[in-house]
Amino acid sequence: MKPRDTDTPFPMTPADLLIENALVVTMDKDFRVIENGAVAVGGNRLLGVGTTRDLKEQFRPERCIDGRRKLVLPGLVNTHTHSPMTIYRGFADDIPLREWLYDHIFPIEAIFTDPENVRAGTRLAIAEMLLSGTTTFNDMYYYVDEMARVVAQSGMRAVLNETIIDSPAPNSPTPAEGLAIANGLIENWNGHPLVTIGIGAHAPYSVAADLVRQTKALADRHHLPFNIHVAETRWEFEKILRQHGATPVQYLHGLDVLSPNMVAAHCVHLTEEDIGLLGTHGVGIAHNPQCNMKLGNGIAPIPQLLKMGAKVGIGTDGAASNNDLDMFDEMRSAALSHKLSSGDPTVMDARSVVEAATMGGARVLGMDGQIGSLTVGKKADLIVLDMDKPHAFPFYNIYSLIVYSLRGSDVDSVMVDGRMLVEGRKLLTLDIERLYDKLGRIARQIKKEAGKLGIVNHH
Amino acid sequence: MKPRDTDTPFPMTPADLLIENALVVTMDKDFRVIENGAVAVGGNRLLGVGTTRDLKEQFRPERCIDGRRKLVLPGLVNTHTHSPMTIYRGFADDIPLREWLYDHIFPIEAIFTDPENVRAGTRLAIAEMLLSGTTTFNDMYYYVDEMARVVAQSGMRAVLNETIIDSPAPNSPTPAEGLAIANGLIENWNGHPLVTIGIGAHAPYSVAADLVRQTKALADRHHLPFNIHVAETRWEFEKILRQHGATPVQYLHGLDVLSPNMVAAHCVHLTEEDIGLLGTHGVGIAHNPQCNMKLGNGIAPIPQLLKMGAKVGIGTDGAASNNDLDMFDEMRSAALSHKLSSGDPTVMDARSVVEAATMGGARVLGMDGQIGSLTVGKKADLIVLDMDKPHAFPFYNIYSLIVYSLRGSDVDSVMVDGRMLVEGRKLLTLDIERLYDKLGRIARQIKKEAGKLGIVNHH
Repeated sequence: MKPRDTDTPFPMTPADLLIENALVVTMDKDFRVIENGAVAVGGNRLLGVGTTRDLKEQFRPERCIDGRRKLVLPGLVNTHTHSPMTIYRGFADDIPLREWLYDHIFPIEAIFTDPENVRAGTRLAIAEMLLSGTTTFNDMYYYVDEMARVVAQSGMRAVLNETIIDSPAPNSPTPAEGLAIANGLIENWNGHPLVTIGIGAHAPYSVAADLVRQTKALADRHHLPFNIHVAETRWEFEKILRQHGATPVQYLHGLDVLSPNMVAAHCVHLTEEDIGLLGTHGVGIAHNPQCNMKLGNGIAPIPQLLKMGAKVGIGTDGAASNNDLDMFDEMRSAALSHKLSSGDPTVMDARSVVEAATMGGARVLGMDGQIGSLTVGKKADLIVLDMDKPHAFPFYNIYSLIVYSLRGSDVDSVMVDGRMLVEGRKLLTLDIERLYDKLGRIARQIKKEAGKLGIVNHH
Repeated sequence: MKPRDTDTPFPMTPADLLIENALVVTMDKDFRVIENGAVAVGGNRLLGVGTTRDLKEQFRPERCIDGRRKLVLPGLVNTHTHSPMTIYRGFADDIPLREWLYDHIFPIEAIFTDPENVRAGTRLAIAEMLLSGTTTFNDMYYYVDEMARVVAQSGMRAVLNETIIDSPAPNSPTPAEGLAIANGLIENWNGHPLVTIGIGAHAPYSVAADLVRQTKALADRHHLPFNIHVAETRWEFEKILRQHGATPVQYLHGLDVLSPNMVAAHCVHLTEEDIGLLGTHGVGIAHNPQCNMKLGNGIAPIPQLLKMGAKVGIGTDGAASNNDLDMFDEMRSAALSHKLSSGDPTVMDARSVVEAATMGGARVLGMDGQIGSLTVGKKADLIVLDMDKPHAFPFYNIYSLIVYSLRGSDVDSVMVDGRMLVEGRKLLTLDIERLYDKLGRIARQIKKEAGKLGIVNHH
């Protein structure tokens, strides 16, 4: 091999980091999978994605990471969760949704939803999500300002939606005050590199028509995501049908809110017409298979929605209904649940599932120009998985391996916006030990109050 | 506190090990859960199970393990797998079972099922199972003598069943030779502390009536488990109905083989009458929810079988159809799949699922007097899980935590028959690095042959 000509007409580009010798699954439009692949990062951007040989000729990195027997993937996008609810993980299980929500979750939330608990719960959620490979999450809750500060400190990326609801919310006695809070958030967090503010209307059954429209108008005015739970339960479907003579989707269509900036969580109970409406209006679907299964709600018609061109992402929902925030686990359930409900093992093949968890989620959040694939110029949000484990060996199809064999615990390193947040399975930006102490105290208080209310999880 | 009287009338019992200060979930008949619990082990037996305070007064252990923030559970029992098939992990996915079996798995198995590959695949399977908390597995395959030696070396516990089938098997051109092999195995491994030999008839559609009866007779003569795949697919159900005018279960009942030593894998397609027959004859059911979902076969009516008093265990099936051997993952799927198929979130509650994965599995294998719960006098088969993880925090119900939040990767230590096989997530009895090299070579050969046969996993 002759030495490199130092007077080369193509001088090497400086880079902060080169991950080399890895298996790189790009999830780009050509679904490139690069053996002996490499990724170059500079600032918060991806500078290069290609073979190790090519990138080593092109870049002069400050630091190299050896990716031998490692897999590099775009960071996963969790399109629907309520992260502060980690403090209620496993609080009420194996019961129907309405009982779960009205007899257990709402009463305990009424006591414990305050800024301190929101901060602690969000921190715990971020720790769990980062350690299992999620780099962006989309959240509907209250005290969003508290959440946003935790997100910014942690270095994770998030879309955070103050939730508007008819009934008094923990931080706003009236919906008008909720909207005022949302307005303030939009102003305060405008232009933040990690935090995007959005807005949520709780659900068609819990938010009056006018308020749904106002919430949507606020989102549109600022070009923000508009979130809403839609057709999660049979009960909701029938209630809306009874009250409005229309399915939940058709009712929302009548309110003129179906649009590409809408993120519709669940969408379990849909008619053929509903599926068509969601597809043609470019609505983003947040598919939460584990939560939908666990609460006995059924499963969203995702293969049909994909066929109609709908944007589909995957979400974990909150830890009080799932009971984890692990997107690998959720991908596996997404693949398996549709094969069960349809009896067709070819639906939701592994690659489609990985796409939903990456680019699909980015599209749902309107961020597909910035994240979701390993594409030069996009934000450097990526995860590195360790394949040196018995359950990861051997493999014949990388998408099958990701969906059916790998786990969140195989995530070794996580980068968001060009910054390493996890390395060697250790969190670099969160002090988890101090958090456990605090959460232990909160959980003991919750147990005590649950005892008084007679809503302990006994079975 | 006054000093202990050294002339106490109850002298302390020597023990090899005391795990102390742990949360002990016994899965015994009273479902005892012991906070600040302890387990004392002597030889290959459990000497004590109780509070740390009580056991420290009772035992004088050689070694203590601090179980603070750790969970001690009986080792999990995987009631149905084909461990050597790990070499085909992810070889053919997202296709229907008959295509999977006849066009992909059978042709590649015909080339690669030899003693060396069986040993390598079994070793990989044992590594994966131990690291994810399984201490006993029930296996149907070929070259069982090779498997048995690997099991004995590894220190794991297993029931190993030479599989009888009409067509030529990899190690026996005729069923008669298969039965002769089984006879030899029974003789050679008689009385082994870890290996129990059983016998398997492949399935009602692949084994002639007389051969099913002969296989069962051999099992009965030696008081061994008799394994068979039953009613896994709609195709099988209809074929047997057409050929014999009976459902697979009724057909087997007609052959007089339904009995308590029968382990029936799958049992997806059952009539009410079938459910009754399996229950009243005390047949053990090996429930494999992930495999059944993944191949689009549906889901076994487990809640109904439990109601009829059937013994139910959980199995992963082989890694070529699942694609992992992780019983935690399988427990979660067992809980979620039935809630999806029934729409009832109360079925297969978390405790029932943990029971199926421990005592239920032990009953299915006829080993409930020896394993399946942390009960004094039983074999010391136990696992220790690390709860110091964000996804394990907080918890309100320990069974919910185990099923819905914990993962195989939370397993820190594994003991089988009183011997530590995993500690600090490291395998103590298997050299995994050397295994990877060998498996890499096998996988490359498999890929090459799959290419020639035109059966590469492309999608």
